[in-house]
Amino acid sequence: MGDVGIVKTQYHTFASPPHEFVLECGEKLGPITVAYETYGRLNSSGDNAILILHALTGSAHAAGWHRADERKPGWWDPMVGPGRPLDTDRYFVICSNVLGSCYGTTGPSSPNPSTGKPYGLDFPVITVRDMVRVQRVLLEELGVKRLVTAIGGSLGGMQALEWGVLYPELLSSLIVIAAPGRTSAMNIAFNTVQREAIYMDPAWRGGDYYGTPGPERGLALARMIGTITYKSDESWSFKFGRVMNGQPEDFFRLESRFEVENYLYYQGRKLVERFDANCYLYLTKAMDLHDVGRGFSSYEEALSRIICPCLVIGISSDILYPPYQVKEIAEIINKTGGRAIYKELVSPYGHDAFLIEFTKLGMMVAEFLKEMGP
Amino acid sequence: MGDVGIVKTQYHTFASPPHEFVLECGEKLGPITVAYETYGRLNSSGDNAILILHALTGSAHAAGWHRADERKPGWWDPMVGPGRPLDTDRYFVICSNVLGSCYGTTGPSSPNPSTGKPYGLDFPVITVRDMVRVQRVLLEELGVKRLVTAIGGSLGGMQALEWGVLYPELLSSLIVIAAPGRTSAMNIAFNTVQREAIYMDPAWRGGDYYGTPGPERGLALARMIGTITYKSDESWSFKFGRVMNGQPEDFFRLESRFEVENYLYYQGRKLVERFDANCYLYLTKAMDLHDVGRGFSSYEEALSRIICPCLVIGISSDILYPPYQVKEIAEIINKTGGRAIYKELVSPYGHDAFLIEFTKLGMMVAEFLKEMGP
Repeated sequence: MGDVGIVKTQYHTFASPPHEFVLECGEKLGPITVAYETYGRLNSSGDNAILILHALTGSAHAAGWHRADERKPGWWDPMVGPGRPLDTDRYFVICSNVLGSCYGTTGPSSPNPSTGKPYGLDFPVITVRDMVRVQRVLLEELGVKRLVTAIGGSLGGMQALEWGVLYPELLSSLIVIAAPGRTSAMNIAFNTVQREAIYMDPAWRGGDYYGTPGPERGLALARMIGTITYKSDESWSFKFGRVMNGQPEDFFRLESRFEVENYLYYQGRKLVERFDANCYLYLTKAMDLHDVGRGFSSYEEALSRIICPCLVIGISSDILYPPYQVKEIAEIINKTGGRAIYKELVSPYGHDAFLIEFTKLGMMVAEFLKEMGP
Repeated sequence: MGDVGIVKTQYHTFASPPHEFVLECGEKLGPITVAYETYGRLNSSGDNAILILHALTGSAHAAGWHRADERKPGWWDPMVGPGRPLDTDRYFVICSNVLGSCYGTTGPSSPNPSTGKPYGLDFPVITVRDMVRVQRVLLEELGVKRLVTAIGGSLGGMQALEWGVLYPELLSSLIVIAAPGRTSAMNIAFNTVQREAIYMDPAWRGGDYYGTPGPERGLALARMIGTITYKSDESWSFKFGRVMNGQPEDFFRLESRFEVENYLYYQGRKLVERFDANCYLYLTKAMDLHDVGRGFSSYEEALSRIICPCLVIGISSDILYPPYQVKEIAEIINKTGGRAIYKELVSPYGHDAFLIEFTKLGMMVAEFLKEMGP
């Protein structure tokens, strides 16, 4: 057991055909650069690869350390390494930054080749399906013939599911965590108010804010709203209760803050330091458009394409993607002739549990992969 | 059975002592005007009164019509009238606008007597307890000696509970709907992001926006966020699903909207036309500060003061004040020697059910009042 040590983000630009990539919206985009990291070694038959798919503000840096003095390892580090659930002694593990993000893969903050300036709102609308199609090209370039599994939580789980629907022949298994097969109205609602927070910030300037501080307060508010939905009533109460910050005489001041408020403001500020507001708009829009049934005769028909064994994990306290939405995926896959196991990660941490409950999640994943064979 | 017909909002200003009112924060406020409506007639012994307590953006206009051509009757009209659950043939029903609101009772948008201009942020922080203490003075002025019941949902339920804790000797019963005994961390979090939406709107101008359009977009966003929490995942899905507004070719546009998004923007705009942003700040702050245990040796001790029979109603699909929070109130009252019945209003409508499910709610209330005796 151990971590993967020092790792480096790599970059691949699609220079040969498809130099331009036709998106689901019909627009062409290119050249596309993809940031990715790999851990472990690809075998000679190219079939020991695992693809990790990240969530909304995640990056390709899933595991290991960029520098010996990095403050924190990659975002899913306890899941990846020698002897860990995604065992780098056996598997070639890949994580790439999604299309539309700001961690090295082409997105709204990347330079638009036709102007030399960041795309901003000239960036076309992208979908989860587009993200997955870009990943497939990357895997081809890396010599991967087949995936042992595609695994991810939240937006990452949406991608995993699209992998199963689009490329069933390339997957030996699939692991979908805390994600729906199609985004619900309430989820769209939560994304809408987050986008509106950015839109209403005058510093957003219609998306043309590069070279200026940008919509810091709007993006922070978006993150604050999102953060509420990533946790659970129980976890908020346990962590913060009704503790008030400051002196007793400040209690009855409008601007006084409970600890939970300070935490939200802190989380908002933290995201502003590391994320781009336009990317936030495009990626939440991609989540809203997520519906694996699009382009198929029905939602059920799309899910029936998944022929590999699936592990589908819902989180008991998830208010963003309640377990019933996740369970439904497994039920439909089984009903339409596929093989899906539904497991519930019992946790008080809400949606965030897939980034916290590594022991429970790791055991579920390791056990599933072990049953899948050598 | 019938409605109460044409009604008129009345106003009472505390002109005699207490001309000034000492708030829980220690500051003096006055003169205070209270807007109220009454339905039915007070009996000679002054003990057939029922006090209705309204929610965040509610008003004194609980029942009847202000004009024959008014578009909608008062906000709880199906609950109030001859033969209705709050039967005006038997009861003298009162509803007053809460302190800090903008529907006729003194609040941040009222003129500050020391400047002649609206208070704005010079308005002191008020609490649910202050609202209740003002209501008590009003009832005295109206000749009410004793309440058959005090009833309300949401912020109204918080007030009802404070009534039981502060003035147990004046109540024959109490009905608390979809409200906690103390606001949870997650609730504070949802209020925080709503206030931040107002704060970040430059048109808010530190609260000094009177005579200007004011923070319309910020207040609208606050309402949009709030609206999400007033309903349930099930009701959002049932009402809107994933229906997209506009033409098929607009589907992949960043600014395209699902129906649920249009609905949220519409709800935001509607509130802007009828509510004051500073009042929204102060009233949500009052909700955050809500804790009936404040000033008592414990939360349980505060609830043990409630000596009248209580009906406590939780809403099955309420994500804002989940039923367990409401049920806990009844459990503590019973454990500390009081008499409380907990009932669950089974509804898919979420928190808003107390403004929608009049048949179910009316039956619960009517049955409880009948059991309480003549």
